Amino acid sequence: MKIETFRLKSKTILTIDQTRLPEKLVYVELDSSKTVYTAIKDMIVRGAPAIGIAAAFGMALAARELARNSLSSHKYYLAQLAKSGNFLKSSRPTAVNLAWAVDRMFNVAKSEPKAKVIAALLWEEAVAIWREDIALNESIGKHGAKLIRSGMSILTHCNAGALATGGHGTALGVIRTAWAEKKKLQVFADETRPRLQGARLTVWELQQEKIPVTLITDNMAGYLMQQNKIDLIVVGADRITQNGDVANKIGTYSVAVLAKYHKVPFYVAAPYSTIDPSLKTGKGIPIEEREKGEVLQIGKSFIASPKTDVYNPAFDVTPAELVTGIITEAGIFRYPYKF
Amino acid sequence: MKIETFRLKSKTILTIDQTRLPEKLVYVELDSSKTVYTAIKDMIVRGAPAIGIAAAFGMALAARELARNSLSSHKYYLAQLAKSGNFLKSSRPTAVNLAWAVDRMFNVAKSEPKAKVIAALLWEEAVAIWREDIALNESIGKHGAKLIRSGMSILTHCNAGALATGGHGTALGVIRTAWAEKKKLQVFADETRPRLQGARLTVWELQQEKIPVTLITDNMAGYLMQQNKIDLIVVGADRITQNGDVANKIGTYSVAVLAKYHKVPFYVAAPYSTIDPSLKTGKGIPIEEREKGEVLQIGKSFIASPKTDVYNPAFDVTPAELVTGIITEAGIFRYPYKF
Repeated sequence: MKIETFRLKSKTILTIDQTRLPEKLVYVELDSSKTVYTAIKDMIVRGAPAIGIAAAFGMALAARELARNSLSSHKYYLAQLAKSGNFLKSSRPTAVNLAWAVDRMFNVAKSEPKAKVIAALLWEEAVAIWREDIALNESIGKHGAKLIRSGMSILTHCNAGALATGGHGTALGVIRTAWAEKKKLQVFADETRPRLQGARLTVWELQQEKIPVTLITDNMAGYLMQQNKIDLIVVGADRITQNGDVANKIGTYSVAVLAKYHKVPFYVAAPYSTIDPSLKTGKGIPIEEREKGEVLQIGKSFIASPKTDVYNPAFDVTPAELVTGIITEAGIFRYPYKF
Repeated sequence: MKIETFRLKSKTILTIDQTRLPEKLVYVELDSSKTVYTAIKDMIVRGAPAIGIAAAFGMALAARELARNSLSSHKYYLAQLAKSGNFLKSSRPTAVNLAWAVDRMFNVAKSEPKAKVIAALLWEEAVAIWREDIALNESIGKHGAKLIRSGMSILTHCNAGALATGGHGTALGVIRTAWAEKKKLQVFADETRPRLQGARLTVWELQQEKIPVTLITDNMAGYLMQQNKIDLIVVGADRITQNGDVANKIGTYSVAVLAKYHKVPFYVAAPYSTIDPSLKTGKGIPIEEREKGEVLQIGKSFIASPKTDVYNPAFDVTPAELVTGIITEAGIFRYPYKF
């Protein structure tokens, strides 16, 4: 089954509710900028590129909402749209694609004075961002697949798949392309606590296409590397800085240290827009801390007393020197990084 | 609250059902060798020293069961008791304390020809093994507490606490003793997937005594070390080989590699009997693989399709060179190890 993370309706967009997978494949309708904000915040849509696409549609929907008030000046309109943009940006702080998409949408709005035309232009632009993302991922896949030989065992963390993007995926896009090239593969998926995107999303995605995948808990990855059972690691990224530091899902850093210790190549796959031109190193990346219930509660079960102190950073930063290469649509960059 | 992992009844022993914690503190009665086997296999009682104690009572109960058949010869009786011993040993393969306790019990039986007397002697011996274990842990605690300065942040993995032993604990025994010495501490507990002994048991134990503890997922430990938030790591052990390799709960190896990379001292606390005289290195340690449901199901929730391939090793082996020191009742050993 081909995974369609987004589906266009006539005037709205549908997205898979990723909090319901793998039990149920349910689409929810994104029909207002507020719905988009909530969908991102609650991780109904997640993964840096997918968040960017959703935010782009959020801006288009915001423009349409503003266009209803047709008496306002262009200046006022832009100020209101900027407010919606900041609102959307505040839904999650770490991924750069979110801000990137909002800013790109805003720049389109600046050049067109007519409110109704802006709304139409922004809708077109959001669709373009989405379509471009799929094409980028296919290109990332082609570059990355060159690193993969038939018979390899590949470890991945979290979900950098079709579900995390407009389609095809970044890290899983590399795996998907290699598989389409008839290479034999064995994927190991870290379950990726606390939200279990590896178990719930990556395993599900690969199973849809019958790509062999074995689920492990996060703390088993080191043991597999010790036994020489992992040939290559590929993960996604939420933000990459000018020196090549990589913010990605919590636990990525541990995997990278383990990879270094065991001399396993550690690759990051991400669109070039993930590289933040404004940050020199990873020290400036804001790390989102999420609520403790994500750790304490799994389904309906509490794993410790609800009063327990919990530390729940959603991301970590892997320093460039631990990253063997960064696979983008523009090719594979290698340490020391110069983008 | 003082945690009593075991409680004597007149002719049986009670143990906390650790699969029910932290929701419910329930004692189950170990009243036959079969019950003990099942309690160990199903992890109602777990932790290497606690398994040893339970197995000792299992042997005493087996002796009592055999004593009912009073016509049998001493030779036949011993053969039957050896069978029960092998049955108990087969409940879990990795911890050495299980075999150690069974063998110690068997040696007591060998020296006494009267079946009824054997049963009484074995019961006394099982109680002695239990009481000795508590004393050992207190001694381990005293040695280990010397490593701990007030204000330290300490990371632990799985549960090597009162619940894993006759009482007081090994790794948590060190923390408990340091706390009793009025040292200020902050403990970080890895949740320890798949069975969550860190979240369910370690957090609960420390909360009973109001020792500050913060729960993290296993994949956050590296990030904490990167931020210099961990001063010392202490874990338990299921088996230690002559060269100092340490088998312990899955994920311990990853923590040890991360500790090495970040230059954080990594200590193992265990009774001297955990050192297996028959094994030179960790290569000979059997690693138990448990059923995939442990990974796939948390409470009533499935985290991936029930058909998913899962790899579920219960333990890993940390090579001696990653272990800063091994804390026993006989003092602290340091690399290179000579016991």
